[in-house]
Parts: sequence; structure tokens; C-alpha cells
Amino acid sequence: MAECTERTPRVVAARKLHRRAARERVGRFLAEGAQAVGAALAAAPGSVRVYEVFVTPAAADRNPGPLAAAHAAGVTVSMITERAAAALSETVTPQGLVAVCGLLDVPMAEALDGDPRLVVVLVGASDPGNAGTVIRVADAAGADAVLLAGDAVDPHNGKCVRASAGSVFHLPVARERDVATALAACREAGLRLFAATAIGERDLHDPATSAALAGPAAWLFGNEAHGLPAEVAAAADERVRVPIYGRAESLNLATASAVCIYATALVQRGATISPDAAR
Amino acid sequence: MAECTERTPRVVAARKLHRRAARERVGRFLAEGAQAVGAALAAAPGSVRVYEVFVTPAAADRNPGPLAAAHAAGVTVSMITERAAAALSETVTPQGLVAVCGLLDVPMAEALDGDPRLVVVLVGASDPGNAGTVIRVADAAGADAVLLAGDAVDPHNGKCVRASAGSVFHLPVARERDVATALAACREAGLRLFAATAIGERDLHDPATSAALAGPAAWLFGNEAHGLPAEVAAAADERVRVPIYGRAESLNLATASAVCIYATALVQRGATISPDAAR
Repeated sequence: MAECTERTPRVVAARKLHRRAARERVGRFLAEGAQAVGAALAAAPGSVRVYEVFVTPAAADRNPGPLAAAHAAGVTVSMITERAAAALSETVTPQGLVAVCGLLDVPMAEALDGDPRLVVVLVGASDPGNAGTVIRVADAAGADAVLLAGDAVDPHNGKCVRASAGSVFHLPVARERDVATALAACREAGLRLFAATAIGERDLHDPATSAALAGPAAWLFGNEAHGLPAEVAAAADERVRVPIYGRAESLNLATASAVCIYATALVQRGATISPDAAR
Repeated sequence: MAECTERTPRVVAARKLHRRAARERVGRFLAEGAQAVGAALAAAPGSVRVYEVFVTPAAADRNPGPLAAAHAAGVTVSMITERAAAALSETVTPQGLVAVCGLLDVPMAEALDGDPRLVVVLVGASDPGNAGTVIRVADAAGADAVLLAGDAVDPHNGKCVRASAGSVFHLPVARERDVATALAACREAGLRLFAATAIGERDLHDPATSAALAGPAAWLFGNEAHGLPAEVAAAADERVRVPIYGRAESLNLATASAVCIYATALVQRGATISPDAAR
């Protein structure tokens, strides 16, 4: 079988999925590398559709697992040249293994179905690497879903998919442009809303905060440059700050979310924190 | 006073500091933006030397605080053109405000002086953005020092300085090429060594781990791609994993370090975690 080149129509069509407009028009996106392709193929039936896998001969030798999974799932596997792999990659070191997947969006009601305990809401997140990192943290901490609310980054952006290290395929990701609608849906699902903000009146490490986080919780995180809009923070049930014990002004979005999400996972598993450790 | 252009010798000399070799030869580096320049000028006397500040007329209007601090400290302030500011910047949106600072390296013995309680050791960190982010987390959590051990990124790299958001000026940063020497110095300083590794035998959320972390602790974090070398993990007193409650394989360096460092800051401030929340 001849290898597809960077000029083969299917490769040309797939390459266009680097652009958001093309992804939205076609309803597909690219997942690159063994971790992402493996996660896409291992996703729950019905949650992710994999249309096609492109692989170079060298990458095929390195990745028997994902290719066997593709064959078992009846997914077309096409051999491609190294130049075609470079065209399908956005990185300087192409992995040689790329899957064309259907968009991951889940309706918000479905993402919040089934009495969620821990949901992460990114409000106006604009950096795809940060969004992917937070999705990875949410997945690692066992969160039930991630909502991208407001004018948010596309979770199918290559940087987001890479930063998530496969996690975009592990838990439901829903998008809702209207932030108030997203917050109302979280409340409807029985979640208490915790806004992460440097000027929050509650300290994350205060035992009273921990006790509140033991119940079903939705964390709201804002844009990496501007934080949460004041009206969104005001609409939450609690405004929580990560305590700063040193001289930094704040943490960045990814690290602040990791601290908040893991503190929640800890107390939701029955731990209690005592005595008062807040400043 | 005429503004310096990108061809003015002092600007040409400063611009060379984008390169590590030039920084090491001259013993100076660049800090860009109000936050970094302000932190450099506000650093403890003797800890940071600021040689010169370059500012555009527009940035001078926006940043009266740092400029007043520069004048008060007797630091030369030179007006520069926008093109000179672009030449001194590594970003697509130059801040128009750049300080030429002396290298921050502190001898390891000095960084570990005075009964440290919490020290962060980055072993073989190669991504400057990650290193800067971890330095920011260490600062926020009130750590006493950061050590860069092994073949490590230069903390004066522009990406590291930016990611640290001023924190490189807030706590001692020491470099030691020999990892065993760095670990021995930590032990000598009374610190127990905790290696962060996905295959650690202890769960971070286990109360026994928390109890151990309440004493003086040094956290060892590995390279973002390869983790800690096996022999370094083996040389630590404890090997600790961040629990994964979902389907992610792991966290990335920045978020894992944030979870570990903040869990430590919590228990070092007198909190206890109970009952057993480990899986």
C-alpha cells in the first residue's frame, strides 16, 4: 500500500483541522501522539468517534498498542510519509501518529447528569495550554466534568489536547457561552459554587472551607490574565483564596486550580482538616 | 535627554543578555515588566543588584512606582525608544520596562542557612517556564529556598523570570550541578527528603505522609519529561505519589509540585489530616 503524502486529499483535508473554523465546519479534530490516540480509542463507546488514524512506518513500529486498538475498533489506519506527519503536526517533533476524531462536546445537561460531586468550570479561559492542563488536573482528581463557560478557548485546539495528555477523552467537556446559564445548571445539579479569587473572603486552608468543599462542589476559575469577572465571583456561593504564605502576589491558573481541586478531592474522600491552619 | 535606540551601545550590550553565555560572562540578566522590575528593586538589600533600568516614555507614564523606586535606590534610568524596548524584549508585546540585574545565584550553604522548614529541589529541570512556575509556587507557599540541581535550566532565562512573576527575586535560588551534593546539603540542614514520583510507595494524602511532612522537608521534583532519575528517588527518605482518582496517568510538573508544596505548607502550619483518605 502506497503511503499517503502531504498532498493526498485525505491528508490535506485533515491538515485543515488545525484551524478552529475548519474543525467547527467539519465537526472533527486531530489528536496527535500515542497517549492521545490511545485515549481516544479507549474512550467509552459512544463518547468519542475516531474516524481515521494516520501513522508513519516508524511510528507504527513504536506503537503496536494503539494500532491494534484501531484495527479492533474497525478504524481505518492509513500509512503516511514523514512529510505528511509533519504537515499533520503542530509541533517541531511530529509524533508520526495522528487520529481524526469527532468533536468531544457534550450537552451541558449530560455532562452534569448523575449527581456530580466535583465539577470544574473555566470561565473565559483563553490559553489552550492552560485549559488542557486544568482538564488534566480535573481528570486526575476524579472530577465528573469540565465546563468551558463564556468566551472560551476551543478544547479541540492542538495545544489544549496536548496539554491534557489524553484527559480530554476521559471526562465530559461541555461548552456554554452564557456564564449565568452554566452557573444555573451547576446549581440545578446540586453543586455549591466556589469561586477561586485572590480576594476571596474564605481561605482554602480554613477548616470551614474544607467542610463546605466536602459536599458536591463546582469550582469556578477565571481567565489567566484577568481572573474571574467580579459579577461571576459575586454570583458564586463562596469566594475562596489560595493562601499566600510568602511574597508572591498569586499563583497562576494551572497551579491555583491544582491546589483547589486536590484540596477538594481530599476532603470529598472523607478527610477532615484540623485545627485552623488559616493565617 | 535623547532616547537610547536599539543601536545605542548600552542597549546593544543589554540585548546580548538574552543568551545564556552572555549572562554568564557578564554576570547580569534582564528582568522585564513592572512586576519583575518592581520585585528586583524591592528585593532585600544585598540580595539583588540592579545596574540600570530602561524605560520607554509610554511605560514611564504607566509605571511611576518602579521608576520612583529606581531613583530612590540611585539606579540609572535611561529612556529608550519603542524599537529599543522591542530589542530588549523576548515577547511579542514588549512591556517597555526592563532592568539589568546581577545574577541571583546564592551559594547553596547560604540558601539553606537558618533552619529551613520547606525547600524545593528541581532535579534536571529543562523547561524554563516550568522552573519559573515552580519557583512562584515555592514563593507563594512560603518556602525558604529553591535549589536547581543537576543539569538544570538557567533561572535567569527570560521565560523563567516571566513565569516566576517576580518570585525569582523573593527567595534564594541556588544551583548545584552535582545532585548528590545538593541532597547531602539538604540533609545537613535538617531536612527530610521527599521525592515526588508517580510510583512512590506513599500517597500524598495518607495521614502518615502528612505527619512526616509536618517536619522540615525538602521536595525533590524531576525533569518534566522523564521524572526523577531512579537513583535520586532511591536516595530520598520518602517516595511520594500524588493520588490519581480519575483516569489521567499523572499530573505535569507544575501542577504536581503545587499540590505537594501546598499540602506541605498546610500541615507545617499545624493542620492535621484525618482519617485515612488514601485509596
